[in-house]
Amino acid sequence: MVHVIDITDPADPRLDDYRDLNKSDRRPDLPGGKGLVIAEGVLVVERMLTSRFVPISLLGVDRRLTELGSRLGGVDVPFYRTPTEVMDEVIGFHLNRGVLAAARRPEPLTAQDVLTSARTVAVLEGVNDHENLGSMFRNAAGLGVDGVLFGKGAADPLYRRAVRVSMGHVLRVPFADVPDWPRGLNLLRENGFQLISLTPDPGAVRLADAMTGEKVAVLLGAEGPGLTEHAMRATDVRARIPMAPGTDSLNVATAAAMAFYERARTAE
Amino acid sequence: MVHVIDITDPADPRLDDYRDLNKSDRRPDLPGGKGLVIAEGVLVVERMLTSRFVPISLLGVDRRLTELGSRLGGVDVPFYRTPTEVMDEVIGFHLNRGVLAAARRPEPLTAQDVLTSARTVAVLEGVNDHENLGSMFRNAAGLGVDGVLFGKGAADPLYRRAVRVSMGHVLRVPFADVPDWPRGLNLLRENGFQLISLTPDPGAVRLADAMTGEKVAVLLGAEGPGLTEHAMRATDVRARIPMAPGTDSLNVATAAAMAFYERARTAE
Repeated sequence: MVHVIDITDPADPRLDDYRDLNKSDRRPDLPGGKGLVIAEGVLVVERMLTSRFVPISLLGVDRRLTELGSRLGGVDVPFYRTPTEVMDEVIGFHLNRGVLAAARRPEPLTAQDVLTSARTVAVLEGVNDHENLGSMFRNAAGLGVDGVLFGKGAADPLYRRAVRVSMGHVLRVPFADVPDWPRGLNLLRENGFQLISLTPDPGAVRLADAMTGEKVAVLLGAEGPGLTEHAMRATDVRARIPMAPGTDSLNVATAAAMAFYERARTAE
Repeated sequence: MVHVIDITDPADPRLDDYRDLNKSDRRPDLPGGKGLVIAEGVLVVERMLTSRFVPISLLGVDRRLTELGSRLGGVDVPFYRTPTEVMDEVIGFHLNRGVLAAARRPEPLTAQDVLTSARTVAVLEGVNDHENLGSMFRNAAGLGVDGVLFGKGAADPLYRRAVRVSMGHVLRVPFADVPDWPRGLNLLRENGFQLISLTPDPGAVRLADAMTGEKVAVLLGAEGPGLTEHAMRATDVRARIPMAPGTDSLNVATAAAMAFYERARTAE
């Protein structure tokens, strides 16, 4: 069970991990120069508690402690209970969700860890927007995607905004970097994956016709530039979502959702 | 051609339609108590120029005037050219996109107007988030949806944020209210549409199996509450997107995109 510790002084140093949250996503004092992983709100904190991200403490108001209740049973860390105003002052804004948990970053998974029991993975190149990244993980979780791999230029999926937008699913859907990009994609082929590039190119095969593998990896690039030619050359097939003429490419998280849906639509 | 009028005084009353944009989305002095329709940036202004929303004026910096160039050929209204600082002061923030157009709201279309030549429409109930609404229109345009109908409780699709997030597609994809909700859905049936409710209910039919009509209307509710039972009862079939267990329902614009994709996946 968590140890509930009441704190009423916003300057209490035990709350330092939560101070000025809007500014603290980068913490040069921590390994890798990146901040702690922060879960916000009851739902995301619950997801953290059942993930490989083990909280070192929680901060919240009494009402949220009650709501979490027995979910905190196996958690042997402090729960800093504060009045709302104290919490607001510490974190630097009003958090309606009323509870936070902070975890250190565990050892990163390897691409092979992610692939071992996977049937469907997403591979992202240059997706550098935290909100798109968060939405992508949310869609991946919802549609049964087993893992996410990162090529070059992706943003940090554990950034606070990405964790929030993903509704905590970045903490549960396994992810890893592909080393030696894009040559490292060979690892996917060795693991039996069909590699599919998603592109707006009207000359590409329709997604519904392209996705034929027993195991499938869908590659997506950032909105705007898309995948590099370099990355696309390393894949088996270039696929497109049928688009209306004179429109823009879709948001990358939406395009990903459609690829995941194509994979899941006749499952069960 | 637009009449270029140089203005350097931020207090010039000719710029009043653009003043304090963040506060002016509601204009009680205008019919319906709603503001002008504002297009931001070259791309969205271009889309407005080829829509039924006819600008009454434009405001922008010289560079954007040049970029718009011949697209302004048929437009017989003032282009207020200002230095960047003047524009920023008038609108109340820095707009990197550098150009705005303002249009009055035309007479709303009727549901029958939207349905007459349509094969695929979305019907939204209670979708009250401008960003979701904007994304929905962007996805609708991209995936060839012919129109959008609104049941009860939808937000204003012409709100500035919705216009921006839609990348101007709310100005081009026709939309209208369904009167007498949900009974008014009969109009869709009279026009030959199959009515499909989208629901996370695991007892519903898979979307891929449910979508059988020659003409299709997909009903969606807001994220969280979803469609009312009342609305679902007025439809022909309840369909679900296959979801992984223990996950949340998808964002409404994403769910809509998957329904549109299901419709478009084997088109052409």
